[in-house]
Amino acid sequence: MGRFEESVIEGRNEVIEALRSGKTVDRIFMADGSHDGPMQTIRREAKKHDIKIDFVDKKRLDEISVTHKHQGVIAYIAAYEYAEVEDILRRAEEKGEPPFIILLDNITDPHNLGAIIRTANQAGAHGVIIPKNRAVGLTATVAKTSAGAINYTPVAKVTNISKTIEELKKKGIWFVCADMDGQLMYSQDLTGPIGLVIGSEGEGVSRLVKEKCDFVTSIPMKGDIDSLNASVAAGILSYEIVRQRIFKESKK
Amino acid sequence: MGRFEESVIEGRNEVIEALRSGKTVDRIFMADGSHDGPMQTIRREAKKHDIKIDFVDKKRLDEISVTHKHQGVIAYIAAYEYAEVEDILRRAEEKGEPPFIILLDNITDPHNLGAIIRTANQAGAHGVIIPKNRAVGLTATVAKTSAGAINYTPVAKVTNISKTIEELKKKGIWFVCADMDGQLMYSQDLTGPIGLVIGSEGEGVSRLVKEKCDFVTSIPMKGDIDSLNASVAAGILSYEIVRQRIFKESKK
Repeated sequence: MGRFEESVIEGRNEVIEALRSGKTVDRIFMADGSHDGPMQTIRREAKKHDIKIDFVDKKRLDEISVTHKHQGVIAYIAAYEYAEVEDILRRAEEKGEPPFIILLDNITDPHNLGAIIRTANQAGAHGVIIPKNRAVGLTATVAKTSAGAINYTPVAKVTNISKTIEELKKKGIWFVCADMDGQLMYSQDLTGPIGLVIGSEGEGVSRLVKEKCDFVTSIPMKGDIDSLNASVAAGILSYEIVRQRIFKESKK
Repeated sequence: MGRFEESVIEGRNEVIEALRSGKTVDRIFMADGSHDGPMQTIRREAKKHDIKIDFVDKKRLDEISVTHKHQGVIAYIAAYEYAEVEDILRRAEEKGEPPFIILLDNITDPHNLGAIIRTANQAGAHGVIIPKNRAVGLTATVAKTSAGAINYTPVAKVTNISKTIEELKKKGIWFVCADMDGQLMYSQDLTGPIGLVIGSEGEGVSRLVKEKCDFVTSIPMKGDIDSLNASVAAGILSYEIVRQRIFKESKK
């Protein structure tokens, strides 16, 4: 559940390995003037993953080194543990609330994923589900953009979003997919156990996933352009769910 | 009103001048292997403003040059013209709608500004007002993140947000400031002529601006963290205005 465990990786090959294995590297300290092959590789991989490198004196590295075999480079790894879909359901049960899950169909921008986890936390969603492939995972940028929400809101990674939807439907959850051609969100009942499906910026929700959904819902668009930013759209839809739940509760 | 006029700047000092004057440079073409002082300055300034440099053959530069005095560098400037506050009011009048303006108190992240202009366009806001100092202007990143909305939704830049609020109050506009300690947005009437004031991510709306506002409004926060992303918050509040206006209209 977003548990935060920092660990230290030292040595050239070890750091390259950590970067390539997709581990969440938080920070890298590198000796000043490191220009050889492996160091270039580390710099390139770090840049690719948007990880800051701090160039420091060799002396400083000696100080912070644990193994004393740092070879000029030390990386800090943050392990954001993925949750299981069951953890998300359990959270809803514990709170005595109908499940509210946000499913992301191929969000690739880490700033959007981070902002959506932040919104999920504030809107009281019980968790976020992301697909294993073709999407961004819990990187350092995502963690940062989530403003800490990643430590509270469970994020589960599934192999196949469509299949997960099918399984959750059997447990009584209704799926609402956000798309332009849907019914206006204000006129749909969003107060029950719900999975809100948000598509990628460019392509929206994929056809296969959309077909699994019970409803298509839309945000009123009065503008001259195509769509809203994915994290803004997720925020508006999540808070329509919040609003409807508050109003239903107050009518009891 | 976000009119798009592309112009070409050629020569080292000319390009440096354009970059430093805060002009919106869209793209820079530079001769391969340019490493001398002025070129380094251009690269540094370009990096600072998040502008892409394309390195090309000198021959290619000769081809695209207009002046034939490019000295190895050509920049394309996009002039996003700022609107006047009056343009925004006129837009509301022309549409026969009560004014709906979004005011940003020191948003510094260009992605947030771009996403907010995009939201303003889709929510049918008549314009966005930003302050001259301590805030991001209409840069290339803002234009890109706005997904084209910058060409439709007027953005006015004012010296003093508080003073602008005072002047607009005289014209019958009510100002609602977004903050944690406000009344829940659902229980406030947001259907009249309105200015929605969004603060900066870190600090919220500044005290002086907040004092000028008629109401403080808040988004329900059920989470473990402090706040929402500024562009997400602007989206949720803007669409609460949209929702209230739709419902009011349907009751007529």
